Amino acid sequence: MTTATTIKQDLEIQRKAIIQYLETDALEGFPSNLSDSTYHIMTLEGKRLRPIMVLMAAQGFGVSTEDAMSAAIAIEVFHNFTLVHDDIMDKALVRRGTITVHEKYGVDKAIVTGDAMLPHSVGLLIKGNEEKSTELLKSFLKMAQEVMEGQQYDMEFETQETVTVEEYMNMIRLKTSVLFGCACEIGAILGNASVEDQQKLYDFGLYTGLAFQIMDDYLDTFGDDTFGKRIGGDILLNKKTFLLINAMQNADAEQQARIAALFNEKDEEAKISGFQAIFKEIGVAKIALDKMEELHDKSVEAIMSSGLSEDDKRKMIELGEIMLSRTT
Amino acid sequence: MTTATTIKQDLEIQRKAIIQYLETDALEGFPSNLSDSTYHIMTLEGKRLRPIMVLMAAQGFGVSTEDAMSAAIAIEVFHNFTLVHDDIMDKALVRRGTITVHEKYGVDKAIVTGDAMLPHSVGLLIKGNEEKSTELLKSFLKMAQEVMEGQQYDMEFETQETVTVEEYMNMIRLKTSVLFGCACEIGAILGNASVEDQQKLYDFGLYTGLAFQIMDDYLDTFGDDTFGKRIGGDILLNKKTFLLINAMQNADAEQQARIAALFNEKDEEAKISGFQAIFKEIGVAKIALDKMEELHDKSVEAIMSSGLSEDDKRKMIELGEIMLSRTT
Repeated sequence: MTTATTIKQDLEIQRKAIIQYLETDALEGFPSNLSDSTYHIMTLEGKRLRPIMVLMAAQGFGVSTEDAMSAAIAIEVFHNFTLVHDDIMDKALVRRGTITVHEKYGVDKAIVTGDAMLPHSVGLLIKGNEEKSTELLKSFLKMAQEVMEGQQYDMEFETQETVTVEEYMNMIRLKTSVLFGCACEIGAILGNASVEDQQKLYDFGLYTGLAFQIMDDYLDTFGDDTFGKRIGGDILLNKKTFLLINAMQNADAEQQARIAALFNEKDEEAKISGFQAIFKEIGVAKIALDKMEELHDKSVEAIMSSGLSEDDKRKMIELGEIMLSRTT
Repeated sequence: MTTATTIKQDLEIQRKAIIQYLETDALEGFPSNLSDSTYHIMTLEGKRLRPIMVLMAAQGFGVSTEDAMSAAIAIEVFHNFTLVHDDIMDKALVRRGTITVHEKYGVDKAIVTGDAMLPHSVGLLIKGNEEKSTELLKSFLKMAQEVMEGQQYDMEFETQETVTVEEYMNMIRLKTSVLFGCACEIGAILGNASVEDQQKLYDFGLYTGLAFQIMDDYLDTFGDDTFGKRIGGDILLNKKTFLLINAMQNADAEQQARIAALFNEKDEEAKISGFQAIFKEIGVAKIALDKMEELHDKSVEAIMSSGLSEDDKRKMIELGEIMLSRTT
């Protein structure tokens, strides 16, 4: 309990430092006519998990929060750029309870806002880290293109009749998880970690990110709605989540027929409860929880085989566990 | 005549080398599911002026076409990324006689395509130029954000009642001209030019780019339509071009009233001829030609005061003149 409290306090201190930097230096040199829309997304309440990962990994290799901050914010600006453009494509009206950028400022300004945030994130990444810029950029630019590749697969899956579990895992690796991997790798690069340790940290972030996304899918159906988050949002969109893909892969003929009918079910409550029933019959909750455990184990394995101190290994593992312990 | 022929042959050789690189190495490592849409825009017939500027500037400082190619293509990929997103915002159906990316592949894929092209262009910029990456990125990332700032101003001008000539010049500086400035500056950086010479080359590109954009505005009204380019496209859109802004600034009360009426004119031919008549009365063609000459003079001045050899100065000036000698 004491350690968990300690790490949670650490995270809160880092989250506050991140917010402070976001409110002061983060948008230095940014186009003035795009600052309002950029601040709008950047200042939404959030856990700031990705920049925290940079800071924690950097700390493990002896780099102060101050020295790692600009690279951490680069990851956060990049992440927020993808949110701005994803919300356009998803036609989302609201993000974290607040109007989306394109709804508030128009689609055109939202496109341009994201387009300015991306090069700005590259500038933040190398700011003060010029002597490491080749390694930092190699990791960051590869990640950036993989995220786009993943986003494209995600959109293609909407109209693709069947998606295999392997295709789905590859999609979430690209769309969601490589960013966590890159965040940890960048922290390691800043700390002059060996190439092996950079890879271990990357793997830790990647596996944690994969588990994180499956948790996200899991909570859509099996989450706790006491905090007001709608259960079944993905179900209503016929979204090919880890749960649905596994259900379709394991369903018998009768279940297949029911799934096909449920795709066209107009009654929202009937649709959600219908899918929940099938998910329970097939046992996809267990499949998802087993997969998360497998991925979590791999993330722990990666960290344990790294050159971090025992104390820093513990901290990284606890960070991963906090990420995966949410119930909403 | 002989020199002009020679430089045109040079440009054609470089254009072919650019196209060859585009067809082979340019998209190495690019997301496979976004290659089709990226090739679609990258392989449109074009003059390739921006990468040629990189190559010519680099050549002037002793860098071979081969060694400057990847940075030159970075500029071209960046430029094409902006075209893909601009076409979405302009709802353009056709570019250079070919269907636009968002019309062919859908708006969502066009957004993601551009989003992947931008980090790819950064990767090309530093490829093989790692030891100069800090300087290259400083120029490139500043330019990238300025282009977005300019695009945002351009969109704001559509609904802004009055735009001053100064505001307009600032907008085209950002949206169009800094990319030409950056192209030349990057060539100079690759050739280890002094900071002063980097600035001279930047200024040459910037002034040439400004004149190039005013030429573009001029040709919309006063161009030669023998090659089938529609005259008056900007007029029909009520676009605040250099011509219209100067006309509005210099119009008397009666002309102001006619301009206001013409904004709402539905008959396309009447609208175009009405604006042409006012432009002639006010003499905006001369204002535009004078401005182009002034900018061209400044570009020549910048090159002449640089450390380039007399032969390379002549080549750069001829390149600028070829850019400004088009009639359509």
